[in-house]
Amino acid sequence: MKIYDGGKAPNPRRVRIYLAEKGIEVPLEPVDMGALEHKSDKITRRNPLQRLPVLEFDDGTTLSETVAICRYFEELHPEPPLMGADALDKATVEMWQRRVELHFLTPVAHAFRHIHPAMKEWEIPQIADWGEANKPKAIEFIRLLDEELAKREFIAGDRFTIADITATVATDFMKPARISIPEDATNFIRWYEAMKARPSYGA
Amino acid sequence: MKIYDGGKAPNPRRVRIYLAEKGIEVPLEPVDMGALEHKSDKITRRNPLQRLPVLEFDDGTTLSETVAICRYFEELHPEPPLMGADALDKATVEMWQRRVELHFLTPVAHAFRHIHPAMKEWEIPQIADWGEANKPKAIEFIRLLDEELAKREFIAGDRFTIADITATVATDFMKPARISIPEDATNFIRWYEAMKARPSYGA
Repeated sequence: MKIYDGGKAPNPRRVRIYLAEKGIEVPLEPVDMGALEHKSDKITRRNPLQRLPVLEFDDGTTLSETVAICRYFEELHPEPPLMGADALDKATVEMWQRRVELHFLTPVAHAFRHIHPAMKEWEIPQIADWGEANKPKAIEFIRLLDEELAKREFIAGDRFTIADITATVATDFMKPARISIPEDATNFIRWYEAMKARPSYGA
Repeated sequence: MKIYDGGKAPNPRRVRIYLAEKGIEVPLEPVDMGALEHKSDKITRRNPLQRLPVLEFDDGTTLSETVAICRYFEELHPEPPLMGADALDKATVEMWQRRVELHFLTPVAHAFRHIHPAMKEWEIPQIADWGEANKPKAIEFIRLLDEELAKREFIAGDRFTIADITATVATDFMKPARISIPEDATNFIRWYEAMKARPSYGA
């Protein structure tokens, strides 16, 4: 088993943080996304959508999509639960995970891909107006998270979950997307500092 | 338990089809999205993101996000499996479900929301260029599905899953989004006809 990894890009990093939190080691094969190596034949054969990461089993079976890869490991190694324990908890983690993806990571990614000059070959066509329209969406979601994090320690409850991983990666991604964390979002900032202090943050 | 339902909108329909396939009956409370009732205090209290559907338990606990609601029922009623059986199968269904969401339902939704005049109050700002940029993305994904469906009966394997539900709803949504199914996508069309023939299609 090995993972075709994409370095500092958000999705490969989500999987690496997830595995670090689980204490699972999987060999990584680096793929240079800066050189568009994820569009090579080697990766296209393994994921026709040309996205990373890709998990490959020894028999050649491949699995892509960040959360699908995490789901595989979660099923085999349920402890510590990063995707929920019982039915309601699993559903609640899924709810927050999807809210963070749809209303935080995606707007930040669109702001980056549609505005940053380095993304010209990646996002065709780049539509600056769409990029700009996404910046306030990300801020609005941080305001919501800030209210929620006044009531509890982590995004989906009293336990660290995959929703915290996605939100941490989204927050880091705000820097290249040139979106600033509102200074008065004190609960959100407290949560973010706690995330950065976890050993998995460097994964 | 009840579901605040949103009529013909794609996400409420995904949950209704899922429940019909499972044979689970949950009382529905209609919410008139045409009259923007999903932005009312009643719904905002239950889902601050003002989206439908919302599942409400008798103790007042609420759960939103389509797939989170499905996940809850899947955990309690695993048969027939609509989200996979073993670890690899669950991960494979999750992979296809997410591919369909990201590269099919989302582009179709963006084409609709950013171009259709009826969406002016819903999508602010409407960016027609972004809507248009999404139409070829949906077609490109149908081409990929067409190749995959030459090899098997359903999207995620030899069994009907939640990925088929999402893709069926996305295909129906192409009509108001004014995107046509390519006539030569014969495997895709064969799959779509089979989906329309299932009793759950009318849910």
